[in-house]
Amino acid sequence: VSVAVVGAGAFGTALAIALAQKTDVLLWSRSSEQVEGMRRWRSNRAHLDGHPFPDGIWVSADLSDTKGIDTVLIAIPMQKLRQFLMSTSDVLAGKRLVACCKGIDLETGLGPLETIAHTLPTAKASLLTGPSFASDIARGLPTALVLACDDAEIGALLQAELSTRSLRLYRTTDIIGASLGGALKNVVAIAAGAAIGAGLGESARAALMTRGFVEMQRFALHRGARVETMGGLSGFGDLVLTCTSAQSRNYRLGCAIGQATTFDPDITVEGAATARAVDALARAEGLDMPITSAVAALLEKRLDVAEAMDTLLARSLKEE
Amino acid sequence: VSVAVVGAGAFGTALAIALAQKTDVLLWSRSSEQVEGMRRWRSNRAHLDGHPFPDGIWVSADLSDTKGIDTVLIAIPMQKLRQFLMSTSDVLAGKRLVACCKGIDLETGLGPLETIAHTLPTAKASLLTGPSFASDIARGLPTALVLACDDAEIGALLQAELSTRSLRLYRTTDIIGASLGGALKNVVAIAAGAAIGAGLGESARAALMTRGFVEMQRFALHRGARVETMGGLSGFGDLVLTCTSAQSRNYRLGCAIGQATTFDPDITVEGAATARAVDALARAEGLDMPITSAVAALLEKRLDVAEAMDTLLARSLKEE
Repeated sequence: VSVAVVGAGAFGTALAIALAQKTDVLLWSRSSEQVEGMRRWRSNRAHLDGHPFPDGIWVSADLSDTKGIDTVLIAIPMQKLRQFLMSTSDVLAGKRLVACCKGIDLETGLGPLETIAHTLPTAKASLLTGPSFASDIARGLPTALVLACDDAEIGALLQAELSTRSLRLYRTTDIIGASLGGALKNVVAIAAGAAIGAGLGESARAALMTRGFVEMQRFALHRGARVETMGGLSGFGDLVLTCTSAQSRNYRLGCAIGQATTFDPDITVEGAATARAVDALARAEGLDMPITSAVAALLEKRLDVAEAMDTLLARSLKEE
Repeated sequence: VSVAVVGAGAFGTALAIALAQKTDVLLWSRSSEQVEGMRRWRSNRAHLDGHPFPDGIWVSADLSDTKGIDTVLIAIPMQKLRQFLMSTSDVLAGKRLVACCKGIDLETGLGPLETIAHTLPTAKASLLTGPSFASDIARGLPTALVLACDDAEIGALLQAELSTRSLRLYRTTDIIGASLGGALKNVVAIAAGAAIGAGLGESARAALMTRGFVEMQRFALHRGARVETMGGLSGFGDLVLTCTSAQSRNYRLGCAIGQATTFDPDITVEGAATARAVDALARAEGLDMPITSAVAALLEKRLDVAEAMDTLLARSLKEE
């Protein structure tokens, strides 16, 4: 076994299935009940039903089984990442850790790579992000992702190790841009969903996404991201996918807000936490982020959908 | 009557309906039969059924009825624009002409504004473009478009004259960027449709769109467009809308190609002509445009879908 995937949600499971095409993979879940089920059924019925495991997948609830495995993909939701790393630092120290989550920690304001750097300074951290749905990856459909690592040598090594015929990894050293693209797009997706849910139509959504893309760039470039990264897979590509597909949880939450229906509170919606974190950071740094502000206000019920859309779409006439 | 719309296809009719909320509008069609039908039914059953005309719309088949009207919107398909302008130059000379079409003339390689400048040098030309579907505009849903004019004063005048509460016009003086965004996005939409039609999934489409956006920018910046325009409504916004909606004819043509089904040859698909025009221009100027080349080859049946998608999605691993 040369690669481990830690976290058996939909995305982690899909990555394990894809990588098992070329190597043996350890898939870890903290729940021994879930592990037992995955062993019995050779599939993850709870989170990625309908995608049987290839032979190369080994399932475990014991993190010490990663001993001797150098490359560990961390597929833990962003808001649980810090706590997870703190409780497992003895086992994961010194490994190549590939964060497979998107967002900003609500308590610290840090992204996945910064969170690893703060909690596990001996790990070699990188980030796997970009436009993809777990079911597309698991089915072996063509998918292009970004592997972001500030150490170009480790980046190239991981690119080769984690690419398959259908899963194509492009690499970048712009870890700020890759992190922020994947985080910020979820906020715009909530706004896009709200526009569609409220019946405003696809043209209105396209206008909102355009202003959202400009807003994402404003925040990310201010923090040192490169403009090419924002226009690439982890910015543009992931934004487009998340804002236009009912497969996206963030988009679906937005639709529910737009339709004034309820949304299952147990579903992790990374963009909700990110909106609040980025809204606070942007205010502190004096950046104009009207869509992020509106989404944060919608989530906290300080604004209703009609008011939010009016604010965003009926702005005064001006130059683009 | 202060505004005329020349051309009663779906988009021209929708603009007339929207503008009639604030002023009287003359809607011209070359077909007296169509004009008769629109007078009788107070709607354009052939091209925009289900959207009744407000009182302020006046229908005519006589172009000399535009006498005394300074602002004329030209909603004629790109490949018919030059011929139309040459045959009507006596009537339209000296007016403010707002081109409402997207693409590149296959014979001359010119866009809508250049075509007006060449055939009617006395006209004051501008361009109305951006992400919008005719039915969204006709229904009064929020829509944001770009009014591109190199004369900033005329641009500001038209912005005020043609904006309504739901139809928001942003203005720019970057006529190259606004023209090329609206033209090039249709080519990417054909590729995006082909990916979906071939069953490759939304993640693959997002990857293709990302590479398409990079390719659009390469071509447009080489010709003097501004990067902000490409990232705005007429570039990013229109690309997103066209590549993700079954309302787009270019996307639907792509889907048909991907599914290997037939497509009604009477439907105007601007992107098919644009792909061939841009492919030729890019080759002449030594620009790398793999998606445009593949779409041109698909349309001319020099390549099948599996080959095209393989070429585009299985590229060698590299930096983004």
